[in-house]
Amino acid sequence: MKLPPETSLGLRRRKGGAAALVGAGPGDPELLTLKALKALQAADVILYDNLVSAEVLALAPVETKRIRVGKSGYAPSCRQEDINQLMVALAASGWQVVRLKSGDPLIFGRAEEEIAALETAGIAYEVIPGISAAQGAAARLKVPLTRRRGARRFQVITGHAANGALPDDFDWAGLADANAMTAVYMPKGTIRALCCELIARGLAPGHPTIAVFDATRASEIVVTATLATLPERLADEPRSAPCIVLIGAAAGAARSVLRSGCTDALSGIAFAAGI
Amino acid sequence: MKLPPETSLGLRRRKGGAAALVGAGPGDPELLTLKALKALQAADVILYDNLVSAEVLALAPVETKRIRVGKSGYAPSCRQEDINQLMVALAASGWQVVRLKSGDPLIFGRAEEEIAALETAGIAYEVIPGISAAQGAAARLKVPLTRRRGARRFQVITGHAANGALPDDFDWAGLADANAMTAVYMPKGTIRALCCELIARGLAPGHPTIAVFDATRASEIVVTATLATLPERLADEPRSAPCIVLIGAAAGAARSVLRSGCTDALSGIAFAAGI
Repeated sequence: MKLPPETSLGLRRRKGGAAALVGAGPGDPELLTLKALKALQAADVILYDNLVSAEVLALAPVETKRIRVGKSGYAPSCRQEDINQLMVALAASGWQVVRLKSGDPLIFGRAEEEIAALETAGIAYEVIPGISAAQGAAARLKVPLTRRRGARRFQVITGHAANGALPDDFDWAGLADANAMTAVYMPKGTIRALCCELIARGLAPGHPTIAVFDATRASEIVVTATLATLPERLADEPRSAPCIVLIGAAAGAARSVLRSGCTDALSGIAFAAGI
Repeated sequence: MKLPPETSLGLRRRKGGAAALVGAGPGDPELLTLKALKALQAADVILYDNLVSAEVLALAPVETKRIRVGKSGYAPSCRQEDINQLMVALAASGWQVVRLKSGDPLIFGRAEEEIAALETAGIAYEVIPGISAAQGAAARLKVPLTRRRGARRFQVITGHAANGALPDDFDWAGLADANAMTAVYMPKGTIRALCCELIARGLAPGHPTIAVFDATRASEIVVTATLATLPERLADEPRSAPCIVLIGAAAGAARSVLRSGCTDALSGIAFAAGI
């Protein structure tokens, strides 16, 4: 049974309500997992973030109630507490609630706070992982996130703390390791400071970087650069698209970019593989 | 058209051969992406690793040729060069080849070497990401891989270098960061050395850890421990199942394990969520 549109919070208490924190993947609807698709198709109501692509939302039945809860790295957002309350209230009223998050809910998804709210309220729930943006971008670019020799560590960091600045508790030695591959989520506000600091801590100014806007979507834009040139390159790009930055020697091997004969911005990369 | 069983290398040259490096996810077949499922269903031949689950392989049509190429972290393996050659030869002969790897092919999947072989041979190919073991394990355990406050870095490392020992180029400061969440792949041979070194470098002996064998499979086993106790706990476990270790403060919040009233080994955790 589907949630009637006039019921924004459950009116009737039913047994069997539950929640699922579901990873929507980076954008390409085919990068959803089978399990996530099942959850979307079984949901009464979907609470989704700004960054979830329309193509992913379209995989749920048309009659499923969709509520945009509007979290975004760059714009005013629903308060996390309000999202928690809405999710708990809907599930407690007996609905099957999918909390749909871009990428993987356990990587920069504030899942911890939503899990705590569900635990406190005694709601049955599960977590369904998703392909994170770094994985989606790397697959498109054919860039290994680890290498057998020389890059045995892959790390993901966020470009900003709760106050919008670079986190002040970074382990800079770990970030300035030339043998690591680093993916920076939501880097745009702080990328200049980050690149400067990494160079100051010993990474070469020519260390390869790639920024990917709208990874795995038709609107994907790839910008290849170095630590020294990336801030300027990003400053030229529109600010609204979600962006991820890969930093590491393997980023210099972005095959599709080189294949296309371009070393700067590319839009809508076409791939040759026939499968 | 499917590859006839007697043709282990393509006999007839056709146009349109291609390869795809495909992530099989951690084991649960529902954690495959829709794109990976499509690739499996369109393949003529699948070259798969030891760690790929039978349930995932079963998603391909029965007539699809499956070739186990037997890579494993703990046992003698096919040589990587032989896998590369077989994959290239099949695709060059016109077959649709899926190279199916546990987890994500770009994370500890030796994709770099296979990509290089495909590039050198001029074979059309694509890379399809997968849910990595750390993500699958974390979702089952409801453990966030990043936290808004205090764990803004998530990193994956391998427990052994090509010679089977701990890699000698580790950035130990980055690994001994109490504010990071670290996933260690294939840790069993070196976990004692790793835990000792992390404690020597400043992590508390009581720092939370979780080992997960056969993450997301029916045979899943979860072992919660600390840096100080983990080596002994793992020494008691059978050596053959694939294992991943999560190290970090958030690992102490493994919900399902605590919920079940157990703090040590659990087999076949049942989850309550009804979706």
